[in-house]
Amino acid sequence: MWPKTDLTDLFGNEHPIIQAPMAGSTTVELVAAVSNAGGIGSMGYSKTSTEQIRDDVEKIRKLTDKPFNLNFFAHDTPVNKPDVIESTRERLKPFYSEVGLKEIPQNVSKPLLTFTEERLELLLEIKPLLVSFHFGLPGFDAIKSLKKAGSRILCSATTTAEAIALEQSGVDIVVAQGWEAGGHRGSFDVNHEDHGVGTLALVPQIVDAVKIPVVAAGGIADGRGIAAAFMLGACGVQMGTAFLSCPEVNVSDAHLEAIRISRDDDTRLTKAFSGRPARARQNNYIESMAAHRLPLPDFPTMYTLSDPLREASNDTLDYRFLLYGQAAALNREMPAAELVQTLVTEAQNLL
Amino acid sequence: MWPKTDLTDLFGNEHPIIQAPMAGSTTVELVAAVSNAGGIGSMGYSKTSTEQIRDDVEKIRKLTDKPFNLNFFAHDTPVNKPDVIESTRERLKPFYSEVGLKEIPQNVSKPLLTFTEERLELLLEIKPLLVSFHFGLPGFDAIKSLKKAGSRILCSATTTAEAIALEQSGVDIVVAQGWEAGGHRGSFDVNHEDHGVGTLALVPQIVDAVKIPVVAAGGIADGRGIAAAFMLGACGVQMGTAFLSCPEVNVSDAHLEAIRISRDDDTRLTKAFSGRPARARQNNYIESMAAHRLPLPDFPTMYTLSDPLREASNDTLDYRFLLYGQAAALNREMPAAELVQTLVTEAQNLL
Repeated sequence: MWPKTDLTDLFGNEHPIIQAPMAGSTTVELVAAVSNAGGIGSMGYSKTSTEQIRDDVEKIRKLTDKPFNLNFFAHDTPVNKPDVIESTRERLKPFYSEVGLKEIPQNVSKPLLTFTEERLELLLEIKPLLVSFHFGLPGFDAIKSLKKAGSRILCSATTTAEAIALEQSGVDIVVAQGWEAGGHRGSFDVNHEDHGVGTLALVPQIVDAVKIPVVAAGGIADGRGIAAAFMLGACGVQMGTAFLSCPEVNVSDAHLEAIRISRDDDTRLTKAFSGRPARARQNNYIESMAAHRLPLPDFPTMYTLSDPLREASNDTLDYRFLLYGQAAALNREMPAAELVQTLVTEAQNLL
Repeated sequence: MWPKTDLTDLFGNEHPIIQAPMAGSTTVELVAAVSNAGGIGSMGYSKTSTEQIRDDVEKIRKLTDKPFNLNFFAHDTPVNKPDVIESTRERLKPFYSEVGLKEIPQNVSKPLLTFTEERLELLLEIKPLLVSFHFGLPGFDAIKSLKKAGSRILCSATTTAEAIALEQSGVDIVVAQGWEAGGHRGSFDVNHEDHGVGTLALVPQIVDAVKIPVVAAGGIADGRGIAAAFMLGACGVQMGTAFLSCPEVNVSDAHLEAIRISRDDDTRLTKAFSGRPARARQNNYIESMAAHRLPLPDFPTMYTLSDPLREASNDTLDYRFLLYGQAAALNREMPAAELVQTLVTEAQNLL
């Protein structure tokens, strides 16, 4: 069961522990440190340019000869509805006033961050061993050509139905993302209310429903969580929050401090920053926006309207988008390589 | 780690598996079958009369000489706010019309179902080995006298803070109830929004925070879930939904059928039946009531207003209060004794 799993075969690395992508927080140093320690480092890309991705991969390959994972959001192209944008601007007025900003952006056009043809071509050229997607998949053709180029495809599922759809689409490994997970929920469709299946209930149901390997994600903080995931039938884990306290990560002091004082129940799902449900630390802005439940602009358009609030509120947590999961209170502050080794030792002692 | 745990010492029975109380669905036959099989059967009491409880205990003791658990709701006495009751009656009008009912009850006074002095006296007389509470605890004096009489006290916690409070109050065993659990959430205070900590994140955090034994509950459906709970540091599990498909249980055919066709994501928390958040199968009534978020009468007063809807809607699921958890799809239909043995075998094979 451990450490030799289907997953370590698929990965070609030693330990079935994936460091979650966490676009914006992950650095090439983190990815290389995790992969060098025998896990799988992941770079997460949202608005990064193709040239920057190419540079990152070059840097990672200088730092490690081990496999790593590149992650992309595969959301639909946002549809900008003028009435939704206008009503959201109206709702944001008091928040803008509070932080001393006068102008709410009029122009919400944003570079498309979805998985483009240009990104596909880059991946076909650089051939990473692992490519993972969030929010669903790009088209069949993209998956087919990536696999033909030698990449193995991972994608998040938040329900059994999503996992079955992924298997049918040719995905090699499904990441079962439970309710506890920090950051964006991987749900394909955000137009119906999400009642969130917990990791402990989700993993065995997905394991029973698909034949491909299942990686557990959400609320896994230490060796206990890893061992539990294996008992549920997972053959690997993906952990994000646990790595947020590593020195190789790009997070603000406020984010790190919020994790230090975090509690099990101090996060909630919110669309109020990005337009898609993400688990983040509660604050006044999130609470106020949730109290209405009016439609918000699509992901990632909503960022255009929330970014100025975040940028203007450096002294307060009230507009910060601090992503972490429900087990952040168990975080340890140590270098990533040491964390991987600690997790492996803890899990092996239990298994 | 298994099967000899702190819990089997505390219980004086063979297996650290508690069948969850499930007031209204549990029968004396179920309790006796589970306890005879080496687990812990639990009777859950809400509006049951003291005399009925006495009769039940006599019956259980005729059926088994093994220990069992009696469970009580320890909620605050409801405060009936006339404006809340009136606005709720107004909201319910279209639902009442739909099922062909003309009169919405005017009188919402209900027998108090909280833990009364009379119930305490009965327990001090019959001295069950285990007494458990949900929604918090009765007063210190009650706990003290129950313990003096030889009972061991269990209580649910949905957060680490609640678990710490329970330990400080003299509780012997904390039941860490995760988000996945079917039925009523054990949260002490329902006046703030509950963002629900998943079992996988909750259990290790409570284990680290208290010295008393921790039982895991929520989303545990089979040996995999039990083994996972042990890895997380629990020394026992409480399972409700898994026992709902046993022939000894008192559930409607519609309830059983709903479980047969259940999916991981077809439940949600709702206050629309009882006044307190409970995980139940989604239906139109629950969705419509959630769309408003106006205050509802306190638990259990809300039942007075929702019961007629349930009773009048026999042919449809749309007003049914079908309680089950997020792993119901993993249920097996078999006698309780066989289920306990199956769970034990599965867990032992993994551990």
